[in-house]
Amino acid sequence: MQAEGLALHTDKYQINMIYAHWLNGTHLRKTVFEAYFRKLPFGNGYAVFAGLERIVNYIRGLRFTEKDLNYLAEQEENYKPEFLDLLKDFHFTGTILSMKEGALCFPNEPLVRVEGTIMETQLVETALLNFMNFQTLIATKASRVKRVAENDVLLEFGTRRAQEADAAIWGARAAYIAGFDATSNLLAGEIFDIPTKGTHAHSWVQIFDSEQEAFEIYAKAMPDQVSLLVDTFDTLKSGIPHAIMTAKKLEAAGKRMNSIRLDSGDLAYLSIQARKMLDEAGLPYVKIVASNDLDENTIFNLKAQGAKIDIWGVGTQLITAADQPALGGVYKLVEREKNGRMEPTIKISGNPEKVTTPGKKDVLRIVSKGSGKAIADYVCFPHEEQARTDGKLRLFDPVHPYIKKSVKDYEAIPMLQPIFEEGKLVYELPTLHQIRQYHQEQLNLLWPEYLRKLNPEIYRISLSQEAWELKQKMIEEYVGQQEE
Amino acid sequence: MQAEGLALHTDKYQINMIYAHWLNGTHLRKTVFEAYFRKLPFGNGYAVFAGLERIVNYIRGLRFTEKDLNYLAEQEENYKPEFLDLLKDFHFTGTILSMKEGALCFPNEPLVRVEGTIMETQLVETALLNFMNFQTLIATKASRVKRVAENDVLLEFGTRRAQEADAAIWGARAAYIAGFDATSNLLAGEIFDIPTKGTHAHSWVQIFDSEQEAFEIYAKAMPDQVSLLVDTFDTLKSGIPHAIMTAKKLEAAGKRMNSIRLDSGDLAYLSIQARKMLDEAGLPYVKIVASNDLDENTIFNLKAQGAKIDIWGVGTQLITAADQPALGGVYKLVEREKNGRMEPTIKISGNPEKVTTPGKKDVLRIVSKGSGKAIADYVCFPHEEQARTDGKLRLFDPVHPYIKKSVKDYEAIPMLQPIFEEGKLVYELPTLHQIRQYHQEQLNLLWPEYLRKLNPEIYRISLSQEAWELKQKMIEEYVGQQEE
Repeated sequence: MQAEGLALHTDKYQINMIYAHWLNGTHLRKTVFEAYFRKLPFGNGYAVFAGLERIVNYIRGLRFTEKDLNYLAEQEENYKPEFLDLLKDFHFTGTILSMKEGALCFPNEPLVRVEGTIMETQLVETALLNFMNFQTLIATKASRVKRVAENDVLLEFGTRRAQEADAAIWGARAAYIAGFDATSNLLAGEIFDIPTKGTHAHSWVQIFDSEQEAFEIYAKAMPDQVSLLVDTFDTLKSGIPHAIMTAKKLEAAGKRMNSIRLDSGDLAYLSIQARKMLDEAGLPYVKIVASNDLDENTIFNLKAQGAKIDIWGVGTQLITAADQPALGGVYKLVEREKNGRMEPTIKISGNPEKVTTPGKKDVLRIVSKGSGKAIADYVCFPHEEQARTDGKLRLFDPVHPYIKKSVKDYEAIPMLQPIFEEGKLVYELPTLHQIRQYHQEQLNLLWPEYLRKLNPEIYRISLSQEAWELKQKMIEEYVGQQEE
Repeated sequence: MQAEGLALHTDKYQINMIYAHWLNGTHLRKTVFEAYFRKLPFGNGYAVFAGLERIVNYIRGLRFTEKDLNYLAEQEENYKPEFLDLLKDFHFTGTILSMKEGALCFPNEPLVRVEGTIMETQLVETALLNFMNFQTLIATKASRVKRVAENDVLLEFGTRRAQEADAAIWGARAAYIAGFDATSNLLAGEIFDIPTKGTHAHSWVQIFDSEQEAFEIYAKAMPDQVSLLVDTFDTLKSGIPHAIMTAKKLEAAGKRMNSIRLDSGDLAYLSIQARKMLDEAGLPYVKIVASNDLDENTIFNLKAQGAKIDIWGVGTQLITAADQPALGGVYKLVEREKNGRMEPTIKISGNPEKVTTPGKKDVLRIVSKGSGKAIADYVCFPHEEQARTDGKLRLFDPVHPYIKKSVKDYEAIPMLQPIFEEGKLVYELPTLHQIRQYHQEQLNLLWPEYLRKLNPEIYRISLSQEAWELKQKMIEEYVGQQEE
């Protein structure tokens, strides 16, 4: 959770490269890097950008401590003392643009753009990717769960299976951004003001002589939020009958039981039986919570089977993004300073999808004024003003350039916001409530076909003619050199 | 990485249960919990226990801050002020036994045993599982990679794809425990004194006008650790020839190039070609590093295909344990105080593997004095002294009780070490070097059949006759009650 003392939370090669640049006198050359991913996770139709608040706090706190410098001096006897002095005085003076948290985002478009000296742009790469990759991954996974659960209540329950503490805390926040209603993690609640929820464990029941006694003591202590775990012994024969007795006693005291929780067995069958038993006992208001390795697929199937579940506790599968536990976000150099001027640069690769798109780029979301729905994203150079204003645009898919489309009467919404300008924070971090609202607005921009869990329609990312031509020219130049 | 301020890094239900116990006057009742997992990850034949140092630091720093108490008071208007006073004065006064880090461990045997008041044993559950689950998972994954890589050098390169900062740092440590040689993460290096390694990025090459220029400037800056990334443009046509030229220039200056790094393409083919080109250029000492989504399976196959790779950089697949990103470790109540005496308790479940084994238990590793190899683990009650001393033991598998075996002339090594006794740390945390050595000794105790990556022989975990009989008796008592 810490934001300071993270200067060395980076790959060693970053410091080595900075050192080599410093020796070579090139460490202050200007550069532009873009962070993006190449492929959507989980076969989803979109991703949900998250991690910006963490990145902002990291950048603001980015200093080398005495301890860091001593460590580096010990590790690398090569490093000259003047180099360590340079690090000692370091703070970030670059410019960062980024998508806002909660934004829907897509492959091969910049999510974060970092402009600065090679020294500062390299230093921040590793941590920036670490934060962006994880939080965007979990927000995307959570969004898939939310699409399926629709208006049911979603609780994030993953802490014990999360990949260490930061993952639990920042993962809870990412899930909340994408529409979860609460988390079980109190520290995430404390830090981010996320609502927290919890029931009780099996050990609560085991510690007493009978399930009935255990339920009654709990209900007495927490009369306004009684949620009873009913599977410690036998859900239908023991847990639910005891829960019903407890609810009746609560009614006699003028209180209403909140819910029961199912945590094992066939959740479809058990929830249907539980609903029936509760209803027949005159307790239609008691809700049913389910947990036990749930994800968007199990929830989808349970709903299809008529399961009577009101509240879903989602743990391991969400907090680790179990079916794809890493977003392959990368951070690539797109411009470099040469003889005092910025020029585009390209990375060629035997894997065509790994060839970078040269030049510093913006992302415009093209929204039809007629339907109010997004048509495509348009990736272009900052100087391409006509895209923003002209009211007419020719879109084509850079991977399949024969797929072309003309649009007019649209609004072009710039997706990258200035966050830091020459080291100064120029962005007011929104509240989580605002982020959730923005995320909802972002969802509303897309036709439902793009949002479905399985085989979604592919949302198009168009490259401007100029950006496309530059890329082709630079590839050809490179191929030409090879053939010489 | 923080060890303090983690009191609220817990599930809300823990605090709710503590509150309910406090109201009920039962919060100081003694309890014993055991943490274990039910199934080995990755189809491996063993797991590597890790996370204890983190748990120790967490327990030592476990206090509720003013901020925590204010937060709880705001969140739950129910909580009485006296309850918050109780939390304010809280510190851990219980007893913890644990396996040592680096130990090989197996399903359904306690890895950590926590004894204390219900208040303290519940409070620590979530964080303890969070730490143990992740670090044990990554150490186990790393151990699989190590088995395959044998004496090749292994580098942990996963930070940018790790699930946030803690996962990167503690994951690097877990990988080092299991035999990795270094990490790229400097903060992990600083905190844990793990060796760090790094080469350079594609951006290093892109920033200059030619690959040759980039290589030479790097070699000049880092003459004693030159490792050149050769795939920015074309590995065989451009990268390796330029690296060879650079190596020759280094030789002229009396230096030897360390290595080249391959990061894309067919690593088997490219490494064989690269080796040939380097050898023909008279550079047999230049090593070949490979990276690019490697795991134990790709490394195994590359080696089988004759790849000439000396050093493996392993990232995403290791740091996220991608093929199974969570260890399902649980924490279950096995004894409770009743009328001033401790008595065993059981949790029944419709899923037979989820039925707990009642009673506080030890784990003995039964090692043949003849072969020096481990025969089985023996899980028994602390009072079962004869197992430790008798020199004769009847082993049977609790899942398949008909599989029986008698052993004699063995040593019974207690696997659970006292860590805290009534709140006092009684264990001296070993150095990472000692942990690595212990891990190696642990591996040496097992026949190679248990260690192989695919379809390993199953190492047996035996339950003592007494423990087994108690479990059967308690299950029958429960079934009897149900039938009444």
